[in-house]
Amino acid sequence: MPEINRQILLVSRPQGAASADNFRLVEAPLAPLADGEFRVRNHYLSLDPYMRGRMSDSKSYAAPQPLNEVMIGGTAGEVVESKHPSFAVGDKVTGMFGWQEFGTSDGRGITKVDDTRVPLSAYLGVVGMTGVTAWYGLNRIIAPQAGETVVVSAASGAVGSVVGQLAKLAGCRAVGIAGGETKCRYVVQTLGFDACVDYKAGRLCEDLEKATPNGVDGCFENVGGVVFDTTLARMNAHGRIAVCGMISRYDPNHAALANAGAILTQRLALRGFIVYEHPDVWPEALQQLGELVAYRKLHYRESVAEGLEAAPQAFLGMLEGRNFGKQIVKLI
Amino acid sequence: MPEINRQILLVSRPQGAASADNFRLVEAPLAPLADGEFRVRNHYLSLDPYMRGRMSDSKSYAAPQPLNEVMIGGTAGEVVESKHPSFAVGDKVTGMFGWQEFGTSDGRGITKVDDTRVPLSAYLGVVGMTGVTAWYGLNRIIAPQAGETVVVSAASGAVGSVVGQLAKLAGCRAVGIAGGETKCRYVVQTLGFDACVDYKAGRLCEDLEKATPNGVDGCFENVGGVVFDTTLARMNAHGRIAVCGMISRYDPNHAALANAGAILTQRLALRGFIVYEHPDVWPEALQQLGELVAYRKLHYRESVAEGLEAAPQAFLGMLEGRNFGKQIVKLI
Repeated sequence: MPEINRQILLVSRPQGAASADNFRLVEAPLAPLADGEFRVRNHYLSLDPYMRGRMSDSKSYAAPQPLNEVMIGGTAGEVVESKHPSFAVGDKVTGMFGWQEFGTSDGRGITKVDDTRVPLSAYLGVVGMTGVTAWYGLNRIIAPQAGETVVVSAASGAVGSVVGQLAKLAGCRAVGIAGGETKCRYVVQTLGFDACVDYKAGRLCEDLEKATPNGVDGCFENVGGVVFDTTLARMNAHGRIAVCGMISRYDPNHAALANAGAILTQRLALRGFIVYEHPDVWPEALQQLGELVAYRKLHYRESVAEGLEAAPQAFLGMLEGRNFGKQIVKLI
Repeated sequence: MPEINRQILLVSRPQGAASADNFRLVEAPLAPLADGEFRVRNHYLSLDPYMRGRMSDSKSYAAPQPLNEVMIGGTAGEVVESKHPSFAVGDKVTGMFGWQEFGTSDGRGITKVDDTRVPLSAYLGVVGMTGVTAWYGLNRIIAPQAGETVVVSAASGAVGSVVGQLAKLAGCRAVGIAGGETKCRYVVQTLGFDACVDYKAGRLCEDLEKATPNGVDGCFENVGGVVFDTTLARMNAHGRIAVCGMISRYDPNHAALANAGAILTQRLALRGFIVYEHPDVWPEALQQLGELVAYRKLHYRESVAEGLEAAPQAFLGMLEGRNFGKQIVKLI
């Protein structure tokens, strides 16, 4: 039985941009299991933009991550030891064990998953929180009609890639925004979007106009800042905007919105949302997403960092858009 | 019978802020009535912020006002001559005759009104477009629960004053934002709001915080810019924002929104709206508003400019917040 658990703690809050100094890798002994507990060896850790919000103690939808505790995070792994009647050694499970190699639980918040048709790591992404995030924002907020144009920022990312593919399946024109030629090519050629605008090319305004000749009916916003502002100016009357991420706002130099007047002139509906607040949609969404993955109708890509010690740099890279697909850490 | 009609035309579009030079007063002969027509002597002309949008030819929800034609505007008056079977001399009517002393119509778009319980000018405001605007934004977008806090900008204005009073009738804490001590005193003492913040006092942030100790659940936004931005930062989770006006955006130096991140962190719902797009609510809203005015449960105030020639300066003053209550022009 393993005796040592490696963990990453948050030890300080960012002043401005987050940095590797905010984290510390520690080793902690694993206590023997009590009755009713089981131990999980985490195979995968999910890295997500929401974690940046938890690192600060400013007003947000969630309590800040406490200092000197294991960083919060979703995990997928295998039960390696059990004194719990419903969890057996070998069971595959997902949970929120955080940035550490082992987790101990009494079963609360833990979900058994079937990895025979869907790979285990997919439950951290396309058939997990990120997939449901895409599903909710597209279906419950944008609610697109066939023939409408849907724009998605961070289009090659974990959420954006699913939004665009679901929009295509709904008969829409799907237009992505991403950083760099490689990502844009992936979005169009592999994911099947109709177009993708490279915001790093320096012609965001003109390129988005060309890619959306009929304007924009639905916007799934993952980025904020200039990208969001530019999309606002392309919105059609009665457009719907799902506000899912505003990475830019975490940095003090983020651009303010100059085109907010479009909310009025185009009578837009904007809604910010957190997918955890809508547990009612999860079963339907996960069932659809799982089927699409099992039948290879939904493409997804992972950016895999190796080993727990790689998590901080992988996380910082993701905040800067250096990952390509859903960022995970392989722990075993 | 009158032979001369005085009119104000839009003769140029604003470069930056609107100015009196954009308008010209002209005299035009009145043609004899054709069969099926009637002539109205306009008693009152309504001046409203939307007119500023029409003066420009930028992308907006409505076509721009054509140059060298009579400025668009709502009017209330009396039939003075008729060759129409359903409109008789002496009938009181409202319509969109624009910035002129007489209007000629075949009846389309004209509504007969009863001025025995409700004063004629009120049909241009509290029992007209501005009142329904307040009613729609509050009831259909904010949908406040008793005990919630509703913030209204331009609180002493035509729309804002109705929003706050309806919010109070719904059991809410109503907090206004207005410019200057006089307006703020009016908002609290005459209109009955719980508090009013003077944005010209230089402590908008602190004062709004004090006036909204439990945060803000509903925001009725009439102004945009810094006032809106400051309110955004006070929003509670799941707050609703009715975006009705963004006067600031008409000027090139308007402030951009720095607190848009609250849309995500507080999971806000924002909706821009134009009351003309919701004809279904007008009968219910007008009936309620008319009753409240007739029974003196809804206070309203008018800022009256005298004579058609006073309209341009009164309009410019309204854009700068110099009016006090619904801005109208008395034409007779």
